Amino acid sequence: MITLADVEAARARLDGNIRRTPLIAADNLSAPISTADLYLKLECLQATGSFKARGATNRLLATPREQLEKGIVAASGGNHGVAVARTGALAGVPAHIFVPETIAPSKLAKLRQWGAHVELVGQVFDEADRAARAYAASIGAIYFHPFADPLVVAGQGTLALEVLDQLPDVDTFLIAIGGGGLIGGMGTAIRALKPGARIVGIEPVGCPTLKASLDAGHVVTVETITTRVPTMTCARTDDAVFELVRSVVDDIVLVDDAAMVDAARWLWFELGIAADLSGAAAAAALMTGAVTVRQGEKVCALVCGAGPDGIV
Amino acid sequence: MITLADVEAARARLDGNIRRTPLIAADNLSAPISTADLYLKLECLQATGSFKARGATNRLLATPREQLEKGIVAASGGNHGVAVARTGALAGVPAHIFVPETIAPSKLAKLRQWGAHVELVGQVFDEADRAARAYAASIGAIYFHPFADPLVVAGQGTLALEVLDQLPDVDTFLIAIGGGGLIGGMGTAIRALKPGARIVGIEPVGCPTLKASLDAGHVVTVETITTRVPTMTCARTDDAVFELVRSVVDDIVLVDDAAMVDAARWLWFELGIAADLSGAAAAAALMTGAVTVRQGEKVCALVCGAGPDGIV
Repeated sequence: MITLADVEAARARLDGNIRRTPLIAADNLSAPISTADLYLKLECLQATGSFKARGATNRLLATPREQLEKGIVAASGGNHGVAVARTGALAGVPAHIFVPETIAPSKLAKLRQWGAHVELVGQVFDEADRAARAYAASIGAIYFHPFADPLVVAGQGTLALEVLDQLPDVDTFLIAIGGGGLIGGMGTAIRALKPGARIVGIEPVGCPTLKASLDAGHVVTVETITTRVPTMTCARTDDAVFELVRSVVDDIVLVDDAAMVDAARWLWFELGIAADLSGAAAAAALMTGAVTVRQGEKVCALVCGAGPDGIV
Repeated sequence: MITLADVEAARARLDGNIRRTPLIAADNLSAPISTADLYLKLECLQATGSFKARGATNRLLATPREQLEKGIVAASGGNHGVAVARTGALAGVPAHIFVPETIAPSKLAKLRQWGAHVELVGQVFDEADRAARAYAASIGAIYFHPFADPLVVAGQGTLALEVLDQLPDVDTFLIAIGGGGLIGGMGTAIRALKPGARIVGIEPVGCPTLKASLDAGHVVTVETITTRVPTMTCARTDDAVFELVRSVVDDIVLVDDAAMVDAARWLWFELGIAADLSGAAAAAALMTGAVTVRQGEKVCALVCGAGPDGIV
């Protein structure tokens, strides 16, 4: 789907248009969650509050200007929507974000603060997404997919280049999975530059999209989604993303929603980090023992998004 | 009160016992608050959630073991209390933290999570503090003052050494003031290493302790405190701290509580940073124009503590 060259091109394109986020050692803890040397990549400090700004902005900057004139369309009740709203602001064109009517008021406010035209359609993501695609076709506007797009995947992959600069001797990456674009992009860069590193994906017990597909050997649809973590409720991945993820990951482990809440609270109490539940998923995998580590192993847990979920 | 050598000794003592917190450029913003080049020192990610860990831990590590055996006593409904609770955990001795009965349940929980013995006394800080001092004297335990202590001031000063490493060409420091220990300690290091840098303190309109004292030329007591920002309600500073602050600051500016709330919301929306109101005070001084800056001036705003205040 993509190669290291695509990720490096994305890094050059994104330079100055996104933030280089800090990586910190999770030391001086009251209650360590692991015997590993834990590092946290604070992508929760990224513009728009998540890694989604990387992929969406790379998509924007690689798109010829004439394709943007009619505006940009996306469907998302979450971080992708906010990231696409920002691309509209960057390009000075309208961003039309289709969201389900069940969207949280705070997310709606965030979309509007970035200047998006918000369209409330249906009760679930799929309804909003169908409306978004139809609208884009009807007005000739470009549609930005949240993950099934090589430019989006390459943009997310730039996160791995930063971590490898900041922590060259990293042993293991813990990366939350929604649709698979993030781990696919990061994995591409990691396998090219540090092939021996371990790459572990984390999915919710209540929506094991990639895990179920890997186990089946082909893309499957999760028929019953029981997680309440909105950024990790993707019922079905894309064929090309699936092949990419299959070629790069070592393992995918599952955590339940309660473990992500516990991990988000831990991040807040110990480190003052306000993560959303997917942002806490990597820490949850350590806390629960879903991923096993050696003492002293250098583990990078990606805190992929900001949120108030751990603040009590 | 202290010199650069005291701050450097504190840095050596604290190495490995506190976190080196990141400094980030506040770029890629939807709504910039200043024409300056703004950098944020994320001390909200410090152990215990604020810079107070530096001073308290330096005090601990410089204290002979035999003086610690009876335990450590402090009064604080806020960040100093949590930082002292952690010193008890580090030393393996009891920490007795005296707090007013009006303490927020979340702060109480945090003190207990660090293993402190919490004593609820009176309605305001002064009552709790009198009880703390009396208790310390009665059992022969050591009392840790929140700011009127050269070792505490030197510990807070280590923040300036880190910023000067991370941003050597910094022009201006914006530093929130409670009792004056933080700005006094940082100012000592800055005046010694980068004498031309500008040092601006920020106080609440509703409790201008140092500003009123500077204006009067001597320490005065703020008789009527109207701010609701708990970490900035110090009615009276200490004589030695006052002399130190007077010798290092260029200016002290005032911001009201509403401006700090706005700034905390801005930090959350734009940067995913969960600051408490004093942690947002430096940004508030820029937003309101209380401090004036040149275009391109390199300004370091200290985000001195974590909190949920900007999350809506």
